[in-house]
Amino acid sequence: MAGGGAAASALSSPWRALLQRALDANAHLKHSTFFQLATVGGGGRPANRTVVFRGFQEHCDKIQINTDARSNKIGEIKEWPLGEICWYFTDSWEQLRISGIIDVIDGSSPDPAKLQQREKAWFASSVKSRLQYLGPSPGIPVANDDHVTDVHLDPSAGPVDTYCLLTLDPENVDYVNLKSNQRLMFTRTQEGDESSDWMARKVSP
Amino acid sequence: MAGGGAAASALSSPWRALLQRALDANAHLKHSTFFQLATVGGGGRPANRTVVFRGFQEHCDKIQINTDARSNKIGEIKEWPLGEICWYFTDSWEQLRISGIIDVIDGSSPDPAKLQQREKAWFASSVKSRLQYLGPSPGIPVANDDHVTDVHLDPSAGPVDTYCLLTLDPENVDYVNLKSNQRLMFTRTQEGDESSDWMARKVSP
Repeated sequence: MAGGGAAASALSSPWRALLQRALDANAHLKHSTFFQLATVGGGGRPANRTVVFRGFQEHCDKIQINTDARSNKIGEIKEWPLGEICWYFTDSWEQLRISGIIDVIDGSSPDPAKLQQREKAWFASSVKSRLQYLGPSPGIPVANDDHVTDVHLDPSAGPVDTYCLLTLDPENVDYVNLKSNQRLMFTRTQEGDESSDWMARKVSP
Repeated sequence: MAGGGAAASALSSPWRALLQRALDANAHLKHSTFFQLATVGGGGRPANRTVVFRGFQEHCDKIQINTDARSNKIGEIKEWPLGEICWYFTDSWEQLRISGIIDVIDGSSPDPAKLQQREKAWFASSVKSRLQYLGPSPGIPVANDDHVTDVHLDPSAGPVDTYCLLTLDPENVDYVNLKSNQRLMFTRTQEGDESSDWMARKVSP
Protein backbone atom coordinates (compact mmCIF):
# COMPACT_ATOMS: atom_id res chain seq x y z
CA MET A 1 0.00 0.00 0.00
CA ALA A 2 2.07 2.92 -1.27
CA GLY A 3 1.71 6.25 0.50
CA GLY A 4 0.57 9.04 -1.75
CA GLY A 5 0.60 12.67 -0.70
CA ALA A 6 0.88 13.69 2.93
CA ALA A 7 -2.83 13.69 3.74
CA ALA A 8 -3.50 10.62 1.65
CA SER A 9 -0.74 8.75 3.45
CA ALA A 10 -2.07 9.33 6.93
CA LEU A 11 -5.50 8.25 5.78
CA SER A 12 -4.21 5.25 3.92
CA SER A 13 -2.16 3.66 6.70
CA PRO A 14 -4.31 0.55 6.83
CA TRP A 15 -4.50 0.18 10.63
CA ARG A 16 -5.73 3.77 11.01
CA ALA A 17 -9.12 2.74 9.62
CA LEU A 18 -9.39 -0.06 12.22
CA LEU A 19 -8.40 2.32 15.01
CA GLN A 20 -10.89 4.96 13.86
CA ARG A 21 -13.65 2.38 13.75
CA ALA A 22 -12.80 1.26 17.29
CA LEU A 23 -12.75 4.87 18.51
CA ASP A 24 -16.14 5.49 16.92
CA ALA A 25 -17.64 2.28 18.34
CA ASN A 26 -16.40 3.14 21.84
CA ALA A 27 -16.88 6.92 21.68
CA HIS A 28 -19.54 6.85 24.42
CA LEU A 29 -16.84 5.73 26.89
CA LYS A 30 -14.57 8.48 28.16
CA HIS A 31 -11.82 5.95 28.80
CA SER A 32 -11.75 4.83 25.14
CA THR A 33 -9.14 7.54 24.50
CA PHE A 34 -6.89 6.19 27.29
CA PHE A 35 -4.20 3.63 26.62
CA GLN A 36 -1.22 2.07 28.39
CA LEU A 37 2.26 3.12 27.32
CA ALA A 38 5.11 0.72 28.08
CA THR A 39 8.70 1.88 28.05
CA VAL A 40 11.96 0.59 29.52
CA GLY A 41 13.49 2.35 32.51
CA GLY A 42 16.77 2.14 34.40
CA GLY A 43 18.26 -1.33 34.75
CA GLY A 44 16.03 -2.56 31.94
CA ARG A 45 12.90 -2.42 34.10
CA PRO A 46 9.64 -2.28 32.15
CA ALA A 47 7.42 0.68 33.02
CA ASN A 48 3.74 0.93 32.17
CA ARG A 49 1.20 3.71 32.74
CA THR A 50 -2.15 4.95 31.50
CA VAL A 51 -1.99 8.05 29.31
CA VAL A 52 -4.46 9.99 27.17
CA PHE A 53 -4.51 9.91 23.37
CA ARG A 54 -4.08 13.49 22.14
CA GLY A 55 -4.66 12.74 18.49
CA PHE A 56 -2.28 12.28 15.59
CA GLN A 57 0.24 14.81 14.47
CA GLU A 58 -0.96 16.40 11.24
CA HIS A 59 -0.18 14.61 7.97
CA CYS A 60 1.41 11.58 9.61
CA ASP A 61 0.77 8.64 11.95
CA LYS A 62 2.61 10.00 15.00
CA ILE A 63 0.56 9.55 18.17
CA GLN A 64 0.59 12.51 20.57
CA ILE A 65 0.73 12.24 24.38
CA ASN A 66 0.96 15.10 26.87
CA THR A 67 3.16 14.64 29.89
CA ASP A 68 4.92 16.41 32.71
CA ALA A 69 8.58 17.14 31.93
CA ARG A 70 9.35 16.39 35.61
CA SER A 71 8.04 12.81 35.51
CA ASN A 72 10.52 9.91 35.66
CA LYS A 73 9.54 8.66 32.24
CA ILE A 74 11.07 11.66 30.45
CA GLY A 75 14.64 10.80 31.43
CA GLU A 76 13.97 7.13 30.79
CA ILE A 77 12.57 7.75 27.30
CA LYS A 78 15.46 10.05 26.39
CA GLU A 79 17.81 7.19 27.34
CA TRP A 80 15.79 4.50 25.56
CA PRO A 81 13.18 5.91 23.17
CA LEU A 82 11.25 2.72 22.40
CA GLY A 83 7.63 2.37 23.42
CA GLU A 84 4.68 0.05 23.00
CA ILE A 85 1.12 1.25 23.37
CA CYS A 86 -1.53 -1.26 24.41
CA TRP A 87 -4.97 0.11 23.60
CA TYR A 88 -7.86 -2.05 24.67
CA PHE A 89 -11.39 -1.08 23.67
CA THR A 90 -13.63 -2.40 26.41
CA ASP A 91 -16.92 -2.33 24.52
CA SER A 92 -15.87 -3.72 21.15
CA TRP A 93 -13.23 -6.13 22.53
CA GLU A 94 -10.54 -4.87 20.19
CA GLN A 95 -6.87 -4.41 21.07
CA LEU A 96 -4.17 -2.50 19.23
CA ARG A 97 -0.55 -2.89 20.24
CA ILE A 98 1.42 -0.09 18.62
CA SER A 99 5.20 -0.03 18.91
CA GLY A 100 7.61 2.61 17.74
CA ILE A 101 10.10 5.34 18.56
CA ILE A 102 9.15 8.10 20.99
CA ASP A 103 10.26 11.68 20.54
CA VAL A 104 10.40 13.92 23.62
CA ILE A 105 9.52 17.51 22.75
CA ASP A 106 10.01 19.90 25.63
CA GLY A 107 10.68 23.63 25.62
CA SER A 108 14.40 23.08 25.03
CA SER A 109 13.93 21.53 21.59
CA PRO A 110 16.16 23.26 19.01
CA ASP A 111 13.67 22.47 16.21
CA PRO A 112 11.21 25.34 15.54
CA ALA A 113 8.72 22.95 13.85
CA LYS A 114 8.66 20.73 16.96
CA LEU A 115 8.23 23.72 19.25
CA GLN A 116 5.29 24.75 17.13
CA GLN A 117 3.74 21.27 17.44
CA ARG A 118 4.21 21.46 21.21
CA GLU A 119 2.50 24.86 21.34
CA LYS A 120 -0.35 23.58 19.19
CA ALA A 121 -0.85 20.54 21.45
CA TRP A 122 -0.76 22.80 24.52
CA PHE A 123 -3.57 25.00 23.22
CA ALA A 124 -5.53 21.91 22.12
CA SER A 125 -5.67 20.82 25.80
CA SER A 126 -8.33 22.18 28.10
CA VAL A 127 -7.30 24.94 30.50
CA LYS A 128 -8.09 22.56 33.37
CA SER A 129 -5.72 19.98 31.91
CA ARG A 130 -3.00 22.63 31.49
CA LEU A 131 -3.31 23.57 35.18
CA GLN A 132 -1.80 20.28 36.33
CA TYR A 133 1.59 21.41 35.01
CA LEU A 134 1.57 24.17 37.62
CA GLY A 135 1.23 21.70 40.50
CA PRO A 136 4.01 20.04 42.49
CA SER A 137 6.40 17.61 40.80
CA PRO A 138 4.79 14.19 40.27
CA GLY A 139 6.14 11.55 42.65
CA ILE A 140 7.54 13.82 45.34
CA PRO A 141 6.53 13.03 48.92
CA VAL A 142 3.49 14.88 50.25
CA ALA A 143 3.49 15.71 53.94
CA ASN A 144 -0.20 16.56 54.20
CA ASP A 145 -3.21 17.46 52.11
CA ASP A 146 -2.60 21.20 52.17
CA HIS A 147 -0.57 21.18 49.00
CA VAL A 148 -3.56 21.98 46.81
CA THR A 149 -3.38 25.71 46.39
CA ASP A 150 -5.24 28.01 44.06
CA VAL A 151 -3.35 28.28 40.81
CA HIS A 152 -4.27 30.62 38.02
CA LEU A 153 -3.37 30.31 34.36
CA ASP A 154 -3.91 32.83 31.59
CA PRO A 155 -5.72 30.80 28.88
CA SER A 156 -3.86 32.70 26.17
CA ALA A 157 -0.42 31.98 27.64
CA GLY A 158 1.82 29.52 25.78
CA PRO A 159 3.21 26.24 27.16
CA VAL A 160 4.85 26.27 30.59
CA ASP A 161 8.32 24.74 31.03
CA THR A 162 6.93 21.63 32.72
CA TYR A 163 4.76 20.75 29.72
CA CYS A 164 6.19 18.11 27.43
CA LEU A 165 4.77 16.59 24.25
CA LEU A 166 5.61 13.00 23.39
CA THR A 167 5.07 11.60 19.92
CA LEU A 168 5.22 7.88 19.15
CA ASP A 169 5.99 7.02 15.54
CA PRO A 170 4.41 3.59 14.85
CA GLU A 171 6.52 0.84 13.27
CA ASN A 172 4.42 -2.22 14.11
CA VAL A 173 0.73 -2.53 14.85
CA ASP A 174 -0.81 -5.75 16.15
CA TYR A 175 -4.62 -5.64 15.94
CA VAL A 176 -6.87 -8.26 17.47
CA ASN A 177 -10.65 -8.44 17.60
CA LEU A 178 -11.73 -10.79 20.38
CA LYS A 179 -15.34 -10.88 19.19
CA SER A 180 -14.61 -11.98 15.64
CA ASN A 181 -11.38 -13.73 16.72
CA GLN A 182 -9.35 -12.03 13.99
CA ARG A 183 -5.82 -10.75 14.23
CA LEU A 184 -3.84 -8.61 11.82
CA MET A 185 -0.18 -7.60 12.03
CA PHE A 186 0.92 -4.44 10.29
CA THR A 187 4.60 -3.69 9.68
CA ARG A 188 5.97 -0.46 8.29
CA THR A 189 8.16 -1.34 5.35
CA GLN A 190 9.33 2.10 4.35
CA GLU A 191 9.56 5.35 6.17
CA GLY A 192 9.23 8.84 4.88
CA ASP A 193 8.62 12.11 6.63
CA GLU A 194 5.04 12.25 5.57
CA SER A 195 4.37 8.90 3.96
CA SER A 196 4.83 5.27 4.94
CA ASP A 197 4.29 1.92 3.33
CA TRP A 198 2.74 -0.86 5.37
CA MET A 199 2.56 -4.59 4.99
CA ALA A 200 -0.41 -6.42 6.52
CA ARG A 201 -0.79 -10.11 7.30
CA LYS A 202 -3.48 -12.14 8.96
CA VAL A 203 -2.26 -14.30 11.84
CA SER A 204 -3.74 -16.66 14.37
CA PRO A 205 -5.11 -14.82 17.45
CA MET B 1 3.84 -3.31 58.72
CA ALA B 2 5.19 -6.71 59.69
CA GLY B 3 3.74 -9.79 58.06
CA GLY B 4 2.28 -12.27 60.49
CA GLY B 5 1.28 -15.76 59.45
CA ALA B 6 0.75 -16.72 55.85
CA ALA B 7 -2.91 -15.77 55.60
CA ALA B 8 -2.46 -12.67 57.70
CA SER B 9 0.38 -11.54 55.46
CA ALA B 10 -1.54 -11.71 52.23
CA LEU B 11 -4.37 -9.83 53.85
CA SER B 12 -2.11 -7.29 55.45
CA SER B 13 -0.16 -6.24 52.37
CA PRO B 14 -1.48 -2.69 52.48
CA TRP B 15 -2.10 -2.21 48.74
CA ARG B 16 -4.22 -5.38 48.60
CA ALA B 17 -7.04 -3.57 50.41
CA LEU B 18 -6.97 -0.74 47.84
CA LEU B 19 -6.99 -3.25 44.98
CA GLN B 20 -9.87 -5.21 46.51
CA ARG B 21 -11.88 -2.01 46.97
CA ALA B 22 -11.26 -1.09 43.32
CA LEU B 23 -12.26 -4.59 42.16
CA ASP B 24 -15.45 -4.36 44.21
CA ALA B 25 -16.29 -0.85 42.96
CA ASN B 26 -15.82 -1.94 39.33
CA ALA B 27 -17.19 -5.49 39.64
CA HIS B 28 -20.10 -4.71 37.28
CA LEU B 29 -17.56 -4.25 34.45
CA LYS B 30 -16.24 -7.46 32.92
CA HIS B 31 -13.06 -5.69 31.86
CA SER B 32 -12.21 -4.68 35.44
CA THR B 33 -10.29 -7.95 35.78
CA PHE B 34 -8.19 -7.17 32.69
CA PHE B 35 -4.88 -5.35 32.94
CA GLN B 36 -1.88 -4.55 30.74
CA LEU B 37 1.34 -6.45 31.34
CA ALA B 38 4.57 -4.80 30.16
CA THR B 39 7.74 -6.83 29.71
CA VAL B 40 10.97 -6.36 27.77
CA GLY B 41 11.59 -8.38 24.63
CA GLY B 42 14.53 -8.95 22.29
CA GLY B 43 16.76 -5.94 21.68
CA GLY B 44 15.30 -4.25 24.76
CA ARG B 45 11.98 -3.58 23.06
CA PRO B 46 9.09 -2.95 25.44
CA ALA B 47 6.11 -5.27 24.94
CA ASN B 48 2.63 -4.62 26.29
CA ARG B 49 -0.55 -6.66 26.13
CA THR B 50 -3.91 -7.06 27.84
CA VAL B 51 -4.22 -10.14 30.05
CA VAL B 52 -6.77 -11.44 32.54
CA PHE B 53 -6.28 -11.43 36.30
CA ARG B 54 -6.58 -15.03 37.51
CA GLY B 55 -6.44 -14.23 41.22
CA PHE B 56 -3.64 -14.40 43.73
CA GLN B 57 -1.68 -17.49 44.54
CA GLU B 58 -2.78 -18.80 47.93
CA HIS B 59 -1.15 -17.32 51.03
CA CYS B 60 0.90 -14.73 49.14
CA ASP B 61 0.69 -11.70 46.85
CA LYS B 62 1.69 -13.41 43.61
CA ILE B 63 -0.60 -12.42 40.74
CA GLN B 64 -1.63 -15.25 38.41
CA ILE B 65 -1.95 -14.96 34.63
CA ASN B 66 -2.78 -17.73 32.16
CA THR B 67 -0.98 -17.75 28.87
CA ASP B 68 -0.11 -19.88 25.86
CA ALA B 69 3.32 -21.51 26.14
CA ARG B 70 3.74 -20.91 22.39
CA SER B 71 3.38 -17.13 22.59
CA ASN B 72 6.45 -14.92 22.06
CA LYS B 73 6.29 -13.54 25.56
CA ILE B 74 7.25 -16.85 27.18
CA GLY B 75 10.76 -16.88 25.69
CA GLU B 76 11.11 -13.16 26.35
CA ILE B 77 10.10 -13.48 30.01
CA LYS B 78 12.42 -16.44 30.54
CA GLU B 79 15.25 -14.23 29.24
CA TRP B 80 14.24 -11.15 31.23
CA PRO B 81 11.70 -11.91 33.97
CA LEU B 82 10.74 -8.35 34.95
CA GLY B 83 7.22 -7.11 34.45
CA GLU B 84 5.01 -4.14 35.23
CA ILE B 85 1.26 -4.44 35.37
CA CYS B 86 -0.81 -1.33 34.66
CA TRP B 87 -4.34 -1.82 35.97
CA TYR B 88 -6.73 1.01 35.28
CA PHE B 89 -10.22 0.93 36.76
CA THR B 90 -12.40 2.81 34.33
CA ASP B 91 -15.32 3.52 36.65
CA SER B 92 -13.51 4.55 39.82
CA TRP B 93 -10.58 6.26 38.06
CA GLU B 94 -7.99 4.31 40.01
CA GLN B 95 -4.70 2.99 38.64
CA LEU B 96 -2.33 0.45 40.14
CA ARG B 97 1.10 -0.06 38.64
CA ILE B 98 2.54 -3.29 40.02
CA SER B 99 6.10 -4.28 39.21
CA GLY B 100 7.95 -7.44 40.09
CA ILE B 101 9.53 -10.67 38.96
CA ILE B 102 7.61 -13.07 36.74
CA ASP B 103 7.85 -16.83 37.10
CA VAL B 104 7.02 -18.97 34.06
CA ILE B 105 5.40 -22.25 35.11
CA ASP B 106 4.88 -24.64 32.23
CA GLY B 107 4.62 -28.42 32.20
CA SER B 108 8.41 -28.79 32.26
CA SER B 109 8.81 -27.24 35.72
CA PRO B 110 10.86 -29.51 37.99
CA ASP B 111 9.07 -28.17 41.08
CA PRO B 112 6.09 -30.35 42.14
CA ALA B 113 4.53 -27.46 44.12
CA LYS B 114 4.58 -25.25 41.02
CA LEU B 115 3.12 -28.00 38.85
CA GLN B 116 0.35 -28.30 41.40
CA GLN B 117 -0.33 -24.54 41.22
CA ARG B 118 -0.44 -24.80 37.43
CA GLU B 119 -2.93 -27.66 37.62
CA LYS B 120 -5.05 -25.76 40.09
CA ALA B 121 -5.10 -22.65 37.88
CA TRP B 122 -6.00 -24.82 34.88
CA PHE B 123 -9.06 -26.25 36.59
CA ALA B 124 -10.02 -22.80 37.89
CA SER B 125 -10.41 -21.65 34.26
CA SER B 126 -13.62 -22.29 32.37
CA VAL B 127 -13.63 -25.17 29.89
CA LYS B 128 -14.20 -22.62 27.13
CA SER B 129 -11.09 -20.73 28.18
CA ARG B 130 -9.08 -23.97 28.26
CA LEU B 131 -10.12 -24.75 24.69
CA GLN B 132 -8.01 -21.90 23.29
CA TYR B 133 -4.86 -23.88 24.14
CA LEU B 134 -5.92 -26.49 21.61
CA GLY B 135 -6.04 -23.97 18.75
CA PRO B 136 -3.24 -23.02 16.37
CA SER B 137 -0.11 -21.26 17.66
CA PRO B 138 -0.75 -17.57 18.34
CA GLY B 139 0.87 -15.30 15.77
CA ILE B 140 1.26 -17.79 12.93
CA PRO B 141 0.01 -16.72 9.50
CA VAL B 142 -3.54 -17.73 8.64
CA ALA B 143 -4.26 -18.48 5.01
CA ASN B 144 -8.02 -18.42 5.27
CA ASP B 145 -10.82 -18.60 7.79
CA ASP B 146 -11.13 -22.36 7.71
CA HIS B 147 -8.78 -22.88 10.61
CA VAL B 148 -11.55 -22.94 13.17
CA THR B 149 -12.24 -26.62 13.64
CA ASP B 150 -14.27 -28.43 16.24
CA VAL B 151 -12.09 -29.21 19.20
CA HIS B 152 -13.14 -31.29 22.14
CA LEU B 153 -11.70 -31.28 25.63
CA ASP B 154 -12.46 -33.63 28.48
CA PRO B 155 -13.33 -31.26 31.37
CA SER B 156 -11.64 -33.61 33.84
CA ALA B 157 -8.34 -33.72 31.90
CA GLY B 158 -5.34 -31.92 33.39
CA PRO B 159 -3.41 -29.06 31.77
CA VAL B 160 -2.31 -29.45 28.16
CA ASP B 161 1.33 -28.82 27.20
CA THR B 162 0.55 -25.43 25.68
CA TYR B 163 -0.92 -24.09 28.91
CA CYS B 164 1.43 -21.93 30.95
CA LEU B 165 0.86 -20.18 34.27
CA LEU B 166 2.68 -16.91 34.94
CA THR B 167 2.98 -15.47 38.43
CA LEU B 168 4.15 -11.93 39.11
CA ASP B 169 5.60 -11.35 42.56
CA PRO B 170 5.02 -7.65 43.40
CA GLU B 171 7.95 -5.53 44.63
CA ASN B 172 6.56 -2.03 44.03
CA VAL B 173 2.99 -0.81 43.80
CA ASP B 174 2.11 2.72 42.67
CA TYR B 175 -1.53 3.54 43.41
CA VAL B 176 -3.25 6.67 42.15
CA ASN B 177 -6.86 7.77 42.54
CA LEU B 178 -7.68 10.36 39.91
CA LYS B 179 -10.97 11.32 41.56
CA SER B 180 -9.51 12.15 44.98
CA ASN B 181 -6.14 13.06 43.42
CA GLN B 182 -4.23 10.87 45.87
CA ARG B 183 -1.20 8.75 45.16
CA LEU B 184 0.51 6.15 47.33
CA MET B 185 3.74 4.30 46.64
CA PHE B 186 4.27 0.91 48.26
CA THR B 187 7.70 -0.73 48.38
CA ARG B 188 8.41 -4.22 49.59
CA THR B 189 11.14 -3.96 52.17
CA GLN B 190 11.57 -7.60 53.06
CA GLU B 191 10.71 -10.76 51.31
CA GLY B 192 9.71 -14.08 52.72
CA ASP B 193 8.08 -17.06 51.14
CA GLU B 194 4.76 -16.32 52.66
CA SER B 195 5.13 -12.95 54.29
CA SER B 196 6.35 -9.55 53.17
CA ASP B 197 6.88 -6.19 54.78
CA TRP B 198 5.81 -3.09 52.91
CA MET B 199 6.61 0.58 53.27
CA ALA B 200 4.00 3.10 52.12
CA ARG B 201 4.43 6.78 51.34
CA LYS B 202 2.12 9.44 50.04
CA VAL B 203 3.42 11.27 46.98
CA SER B 204 2.25 13.98 44.63
CA PRO B 205 0.06 12.60 41.80
